[in-house]
Amino acid sequence: MPEKALRISRASGPGRRVRPVMLAIAGDSAAGKTTVAAGLVATLGPDRCAFLSTDDYHRYERADRAGLPFTPLHPDYNYMEIMEQHLQLLASGQPILKPVYDHRSGRLTRPELVEPREFVIVDGLLPLHSKLARACFDVTVYLDPPEEVRREWKIRRDTASRGYGAGQVLAELERREGESAAYIRPQRAYADVVVRFAPIPSRTDPPATPLSAEVLLRPTIPQPDLGSVLHPGLSQVMHLRLARDTDGRPVDSLHVHGYVPPEDSVAAVKAIWTGFVDAATGVPECLGQVEPGVHSAPLAVTQALLLHHLLEGAR
Amino acid sequence: MPEKALRISRASGPGRRVRPVMLAIAGDSAAGKTTVAAGLVATLGPDRCAFLSTDDYHRYERADRAGLPFTPLHPDYNYMEIMEQHLQLLASGQPILKPVYDHRSGRLTRPELVEPREFVIVDGLLPLHSKLARACFDVTVYLDPPEEVRREWKIRRDTASRGYGAGQVLAELERREGESAAYIRPQRAYADVVVRFAPIPSRTDPPATPLSAEVLLRPTIPQPDLGSVLHPGLSQVMHLRLARDTDGRPVDSLHVHGYVPPEDSVAAVKAIWTGFVDAATGVPECLGQVEPGVHSAPLAVTQALLLHHLLEGAR
Repeated sequence: MPEKALRISRASGPGRRVRPVMLAIAGDSAAGKTTVAAGLVATLGPDRCAFLSTDDYHRYERADRAGLPFTPLHPDYNYMEIMEQHLQLLASGQPILKPVYDHRSGRLTRPELVEPREFVIVDGLLPLHSKLARACFDVTVYLDPPEEVRREWKIRRDTASRGYGAGQVLAELERREGESAAYIRPQRAYADVVVRFAPIPSRTDPPATPLSAEVLLRPTIPQPDLGSVLHPGLSQVMHLRLARDTDGRPVDSLHVHGYVPPEDSVAAVKAIWTGFVDAATGVPECLGQVEPGVHSAPLAVTQALLLHHLLEGAR
Repeated sequence: MPEKALRISRASGPGRRVRPVMLAIAGDSAAGKTTVAAGLVATLGPDRCAFLSTDDYHRYERADRAGLPFTPLHPDYNYMEIMEQHLQLLASGQPILKPVYDHRSGRLTRPELVEPREFVIVDGLLPLHSKLARACFDVTVYLDPPEEVRREWKIRRDTASRGYGAGQVLAELERREGESAAYIRPQRAYADVVVRFAPIPSRTDPPATPLSAEVLLRPTIPQPDLGSVLHPGLSQVMHLRLARDTDGRPVDSLHVHGYVPPEDSVAAVKAIWTGFVDAATGVPECLGQVEPGVHSAPLAVTQALLLHHLLEGAR
């Protein structure tokens, strides 16, 4: 992949700034980005991570939207050049004064100092939109839930914490569809890892059943050798198959099933954690947490694979 | 001056970003920085200038001050590293997302995009504090009014537009004195031009008399050859003498008197404007404006000399 050559190489040594390992989590609104990111930050420890959302680079406040010919998904709604500049600064070990978009109030508020840590985790609508931004990341992820799942998540979140009614959320999804197709979904092509959380279509599981995950591992970066841990005892909960991506490219596709008995889920998460993250410690409680008290093995496996990449990048 | 070698050199050519000419106007609170800067921006035209204040890099809001062991004059009260970063970006022709400190409300508000123009004019408390910041400027100015003049200016401004009482302003000046001596006044040593607006001590002029100016022109940058325009007819209003600076260094000292008859003031401003700024046009109305309807020839001469440097820098 010639573009990978652009990736800013890290160098740390006497007298040099430490360059962080940078992970992007891209996806549409309410695709689960913050849930995935929160588990990574909690596992690594907040003192080792800087976290930012590219939504902070919104050029407008919510009250400005009425007069605009585009939605927040459009690059012109965002300070894209400044976002690129800040990603480049962080990637080269320099601090930034990050703008802050407050999703509750819809206002741009007091900026915050972000100093690069060992790991920089970036989520948002458009972190993989431009070549310059992509070049800043060591690992890139795209969250790709089916639209009906995302719609449900978005209604639940925006009515609970952003002050909208369900009708408003549905109207907004419709208004955004064109820009979603034009600017958000094309980022899928630039991800090293593509994750789809979804129910298994052929099954009718009870409502509390965790969603399953399909994790595509592209050969754009060195991927962990999953074959080494996927023993036959795990085949009901997790299996790997060689597949073709939607564009025909060959890809490794890991399926993690949410409907299996809890002991199988625990075994699967443990296998991935021990094999690829940390053989010396147990699986931390925060891994796979959907919300307080609710765990998902497919989410935990996904996060463990991303932790593997972050820790490999830091070596 | 070895430090001058650090100054970022401008280069504009095919495929290169245009690097602006950068001017710093440093000085204590209410030293007249904004008044000097406003005339420069108005003369050059706002479309050719980017203007910013380093006070925008305050780390705290007014409400945070009570618990802090220092005042806004202290470098630790400001994001100095980010200020340096932003000056470097502008000096190399790149845009910044500038924080905004609202002096009226004392709040840090919605940031603003600043794109470099032909000229970047920066005023503030600490633009010349650090070597990295100084290296970004083509011309540096320090405003050095006597403390009693500055005190009067500060009381007038802060009670009129920042919501303070006179007693509060005086108490604040006292609280700041140590940091003023430690961090603000040392910047005087790094200025190419030092300007002192003051009444002439030996005279008792009526209250509306414009202040006179002493303009020190240091040989740290090529200074205009004032001898070429200072004909004997101007000697009452303006004269140049070789002097020693407070640190003993040789310096050209231009005195411009505020108390002379208006026709002499007009002649002096015209001589400087025609000789060093623009021989083809008349002196613009905005030059030397202290407030709407009030003009000062010493201010106009000062601004004309700074315009000379800005335009020379752009050649």
